[in-house]
Amino acid sequence: MRIKVINPNTTISMTAKIAAAARAAAGGGTEILGVSPDAGPVSIEGHYDEAISTIGLLEEIRKGEQDRVDGYVIACFGDPGLLAAREIASGPVIGIAEGAMHLASLISTGFTVVTTLGRTKVIARHLVQNYGFERSCRNIRSTELAVLDLEDSERAQKAILAECRLAVEQDEAGAIVLGCAGMADLANRISQAIGIPVVEGVTAAVKLVELLISTGLRTSKVGDLAYPLPKTYVGNLARFAVEGR
Amino acid sequence: MRIKVINPNTTISMTAKIAAAARAAAGGGTEILGVSPDAGPVSIEGHYDEAISTIGLLEEIRKGEQDRVDGYVIACFGDPGLLAAREIASGPVIGIAEGAMHLASLISTGFTVVTTLGRTKVIARHLVQNYGFERSCRNIRSTELAVLDLEDSERAQKAILAECRLAVEQDEAGAIVLGCAGMADLANRISQAIGIPVVEGVTAAVKLVELLISTGLRTSKVGDLAYPLPKTYVGNLARFAVEGR
Amino acid sequence: MRIKVINPNTTISMTAKIAAAARAAAGGGTEILGVSPDAGPVSIEGHYDEAISTIGLLEEIRKGEQDRVDGYVIACFGDPGLLAAREIASGPVIGIAEGAMHLASLISTGFTVVTTLGRTKVIARHLVQNYGFERSCRNIRSTELAVLDLEDSERAQKAILAECRLAVEQDEAGAIVLGCAGMADLANRISQAIGIPVVEGVTAAVKLVELLISTGLRTSKVGDLAYPLPKTYVGNLARFAVEGR
Amino acid sequence: MRIKVINPNTTISMTAKIAAAARAAAGGGTEILGVSPDAGPVSIEGHYDEAISTIGLLEEIRKGEQDRVDGYVIACFGDPGLLAAREIASGPVIGIAEGAMHLASLISTGFTVVTTLGRTKVIARHLVQNYGFERSCRNIRSTELAVLDLEDSERAQKAILAECRLAVEQDEAGAIVLGCAGMADLANRISQAIGIPVVEGVTAAVKLVELLISTGLRTSKVGDLAYPLPKTYVGNLARFAVEGR
Amino acid sequence: MRIKVINPNTTISMTAKIAAAARAAAGGGTEILGVSPDAGPVSIEGHYDEAISTIGLLEEIRKGEQDRVDGYVIACFGDPGLLAAREIASGPVIGIAEGAMHLASLISTGFTVVTTLGRTKVIARHLVQNYGFERSCRNIRSTELAVLDLEDSERAQKAILAECRLAVEQDEAGAIVLGCAGMADLANRISQAIGIPVVEGVTAAVKLVELLISTGLRTSKVGDLAYPLPKTYVGNLARFAVEGR
Amino acid sequence: MRIKVINPNTTISMTAKIAAAARAAAGGGTEILGVSPDAGPVSIEGHYDEAISTIGLLEEIRKGEQDRVDGYVIACFGDPGLLAAREIASGPVIGIAEGAMHLASLISTGFTVVTTLGRTKVIARHLVQNYGFERSCRNIRSTELAVLDLEDSERAQKAILAECRLAVEQDEAGAIVLGCAGMADLANRISQAIGIPVVEGVTAAVKLVELLISTGLRTSKVGDLAYPLPKTYVGNLARFAVEGR
Repeated sequence: MRIKVINPNTTISMTAKIAAAARAAAGGGTEILGVSPDAGPVSIEGHYDEAISTIGLLEEIRKGEQDRVDGYVIACFGDPGLLAAREIASGPVIGIAEGAMHLASLISTGFTVVTTLGRTKVIARHLVQNYGFERSCRNIRSTELAVLDLEDSERAQKAILAECRLAVEQDEAGAIVLGCAGMADLANRISQAIGIPVVEGVTAAVKLVELLISTGLRTSKVGDLAYPLPKTYVGNLARFAVEGR
Repeated sequence: MRIKVINPNTTISMTAKIAAAARAAAGGGTEILGVSPDAGPVSIEGHYDEAISTIGLLEEIRKGEQDRVDGYVIACFGDPGLLAAREIASGPVIGIAEGAMHLASLISTGFTVVTTLGRTKVIARHLVQNYGFERSCRNIRSTELAVLDLEDSERAQKAILAECRLAVEQDEAGAIVLGCAGMADLANRISQAIGIPVVEGVTAAVKLVELLISTGLRTSKVGDLAYPLPKTYVGNLARFAVEGR
Repeated sequence: MRIKVINPNTTISMTAKIAAAARAAAGGGTEILGVSPDAGPVSIEGHYDEAISTIGLLEEIRKGEQDRVDGYVIACFGDPGLLAAREIASGPVIGIAEGAMHLASLISTGFTVVTTLGRTKVIARHLVQNYGFERSCRNIRSTELAVLDLEDSERAQKAILAECRLAVEQDEAGAIVLGCAGMADLANRISQAIGIPVVEGVTAAVKLVELLISTGLRTSKVGDLAYPLPKTYVGNLARFAVEGR
Repeated sequence: MRIKVINPNTTISMTAKIAAAARAAAGGGTEILGVSPDAGPVSIEGHYDEAISTIGLLEEIRKGEQDRVDGYVIACFGDPGLLAAREIASGPVIGIAEGAMHLASLISTGFTVVTTLGRTKVIARHLVQNYGFERSCRNIRSTELAVLDLEDSERAQKAILAECRLAVEQDEAGAIVLGCAGMADLANRISQAIGIPVVEGVTAAVKLVELLISTGLRTSKVGDLAYPLPKTYVGNLARFAVEGR
Repeated sequence: MRIKVINPNTTISMTAKIAAAARAAAGGGTEILGVSPDAGPVSIEGHYDEAISTIGLLEEIRKGEQDRVDGYVIACFGDPGLLAAREIASGPVIGIAEGAMHLASLISTGFTVVTTLGRTKVIARHLVQNYGFERSCRNIRSTELAVLDLEDSERAQKAILAECRLAVEQDEAGAIVLGCAGMADLANRISQAIGIPVVEGVTAAVKLVELLISTGLRTSKVGDLAYPLPKTYVGNLARFAVEGR
Repeated sequence: MRIKVINPNTTISMTAKIAAAARAAAGGGTEILGVSPDAGPVSIEGHYDEAISTIGLLEEIRKGEQDRVDGYVIACFGDPGLLAAREIASGPVIGIAEGAMHLASLISTGFTVVTTLGRTKVIARHLVQNYGFERSCRNIRSTELAVLDLEDSERAQKAILAECRLAVEQDEAGAIVLGCAGMADLANRISQAIGIPVVEGVTAAVKLVELLISTGLRTSKVGDLAYPLPKTYVGNLARFAVEGR
């Protein structure tokens, strides 16, 4: 099967890191296509960055459908465009926040999210509420690292590790959810250091997409996630029009 | 004051109807700028349409900031891009779903939303949950009218009226929230026919924006709705980069 | 239009302060009637004070209806008698807690309430729950000022300011809701000092009543907020009987 | 012990019926004082009736404290003035809605409330939410009987029985909560007819007050239910001032 | 009436202490049967201990039915097997966590649970959620005492008292719920020391069972708590088969 | 890897069907051990059956640990003993209700559970609440089939299919969750008949256990799911004592 892992920001080095994590997680028969859009913000650190990045993300899903990709991962912790992507994709689509939270809730009675800048905490909080994890999410912590600070893995690991330790001590967290795709390479080391499971979203989402594909479970196409109604898109977005199926 | 009312779809006749409703609602000193984006879907009837329309919406907010507009209304019942718009606008931004639900909750103990296609009900449901109206929203009903069917006001009114009557009888609704900007011209007639208040979002949102401007209450710029961090946007979205303030 | 702003306690100097805030907020064509009942507690600092004050409040609404007042503000942060007042008033009625929380939720993703005595926090908490703001209210803080301590504006401002600063630092509040009508004169100065919006309920409620009147939205009179059923009231409360409409 | 059972409306025949139910429920050593206020509405069928009746209710509690009564029952299904009464009473205070819902939740996984007029359903709904029974309350049904229609026991029983049967069939209710003090004489017959437990609030509340008194559990007087702060009450409500303790 | 108070663990000294508390609470005509199973863990400090102890508990209920016991108390703060016990018992069954939380919510606006080991806090948290006390439970605190440490009453009291004081100061708790049957002897002394009500579950549950029996309210036997369907149990659990009624 | 799939009831033919479904779902390198306990009920249709079956289930987990099994599936829709099993197992443990609900929420915005007897609906409802799926579960429907009626696949399929059709039409369900392990063979046929995804728990849980094992994510052993504390178990349950690790 072929899974397209889309980093919605445009920083190539981060896309490469994400693709590597995806490949490390993927099963034998899985081909990982790691991409990022041609246009958009170099990092996503707020609602505006996220909203603009969504168009590039959906463009990649559209292309993926033409290429008959089997499933998709949205590799940004805000899960931008998730339900829109589910409408146009024939195969499953999983966001990394969603994926990580689901798995964390299966191995602990409560997890803490450790994310980047404080201003992104509200995005994680809204996802926790929307996905139904209000009772299993014990806290959301920020490190005040910018997304691209994660490229400096040494410093990042130190700051993240510090928050993870506080999550164990103060939040009584049973597991950690790493709150940024840029942290994909840190899960194992942190888990060993703090002694509790650390769930990283790229891995989680790739495995869940594989699971859904292998069991034949696809997004329901009856009702509110059905293919978009055929209609005209005008101007320089005309290419986004979806034909009837 | 100048309020920009943005219809996120690209159907000009609907934009005109929305602008008319906004002007009818606006106070003496208010100038209404009724616009729609150059590019995007002719109607918004699902998550995908909504996600794509958001970029045009945000472009209009960006331009509005250059033009020193005082506040904004997002005239689509899904309130697309609401928090992103709040990040980049210096004045208040109100979505029509949000505006209508807030007012309906102030004049009844429970309201019913009457919307267009059944597939959009989930969008209304998620907004109800996100805005905290789970206890005051008694039901969400669809008419199976497409958004552009509302241009045929006669047929639309009949279908909407039928659902509103059911809302009174079966849901024990104390008020109706009309679930599409395209219904902006129908509120009064329906209210007279069914005998309970009918809240129409364009009116509600324009008045709330006026209220916030007149009291000096602007979106909080400390914390998670602060101006976006200055950063590079690449490719054909480069113009969306926000400079530091 | 004429809006009656009712301070449910019987301290005249506080009524005057509230009326002044209401007038400062009101639009050009609005006449503010600032009143307090003839009988009742000099301040409201608990459920008992609140319950007793309600009868004076409703007496003022009854008189207002005879005087054909267009709308009402209940100027006590517990919003005493709100739904009862909505039953007997033909125009809109807004409580200051309700009004302030609605506006705060439109300009921030989360607000903190700063109130007077610790024992009144539970009243604010119950309102937050009843109005659906559990997700947007980040904290409720008390200053341990008695209501009438607010007459000493200097000391009050200092104590309130200290809690507001903590709200920004510890609660990550995006806005402050002032939790007592007696704080109506402090909003601007505090907002300037702490750099985030401060929503004061008298202003909020007056503007919302104006908004509802100007748009023709009145309390729904079908269902559970209909005029009271005509019935006998006996003894010295006989005058409270409502005639059939 | 002496328990004062207060019917907050002023219909003496209903007070007598309530007192009889209370006496039938009370234990050997319990004296029941069945009273209603001198002034107020003859029945309580909405927020306004309820708000006005509260002052008479609190007057009876005040008198009860002078008479050294051991505990109180508020015998109206809206539980008017409950927290205010708890502030001024030294012994326990239980409302009949509260009492009935607590017991129903101990003998079933879900109950249905059967009440009088449709317009009072919202009062029951708000209590369900405030008391935390949203998950155990399966439905709230009205009979469209006015409160005083219950004096005609034959007709009332028939209408209530019909709704109770629907509760079993359609709501899958495991127990019924009778939603009016005026139904106090009907519980046994209805229970026998429909085969599930029927919880009547006067009985429930009397027994819970006895329980609390016998175990020495009184309302907490630290924090938000402490005795009211001593303060002046002016005008014809001056007698409601509470002296310091 | 005869009430069987079942300590689901197998430590006889603790069973004796529980039975003593039950007898101290019980009314004149009540006979208390204090028992513990023949087999199972000596203390219950986690989900596994609790799950295994349930079979001994249900065996005691089965025997109780043969002995025509009138009602049951499950004397472990996790309320193990509560709904299963309600299915097979003809009289009422109350768990001590359930009983204590219900009573605490009737005498305060918010209570704190003080329990034993930190690892049992999640059990209390789940009960709080399941019973609908999320809004009235202000905190759950652990003492890091093992259950059998409570046999050393001196040391236990000191540790529990310390947490109770923090509950008053930091949680603004109006009442304490003691989170272990082994604390049954400590309630009065702690209440006197900290000045707020302390609710102990054995007392609470015994009194609630008495109340339900005396009012004729039994577990609903229609629907989801009906007697188990008659069926075969195989192997060494064959005796648990329930015959049809 | 070796996954032990435990049918907690003692009907061998059902165990065989479950094991077949598990093997059909399992990946190439997975060995499925399909077992049921030696003792316990032949079917689980209520809280009592479930509580008694838990001891056999935990016995199988204990044996599995001795046999160094890698992970476990609890193949009964009530997920009996789930958290207890997680305490004693070193590898992951997934219940079929949990597994199916998680997957259904990833491919639809709302699912309906279709289960066996009406009396088991409350068990499903409690799981929906505990797992956080209150917003994504649109309804729980029963077929009034007993668990062992499912052995007659023809009749069962017809009854289940009828409810599934109603789920699409009336609940607007985007996916179906089959509410009994005995339905494991029906998912594909029903999905084809009704045109929406049908999630069957045995498949879901096996795949999730595989996923967790393959990513190295195990139940957190710090905090409230840590290995049970070493302690004495007495009587004929002495073998359940867990030694210290």
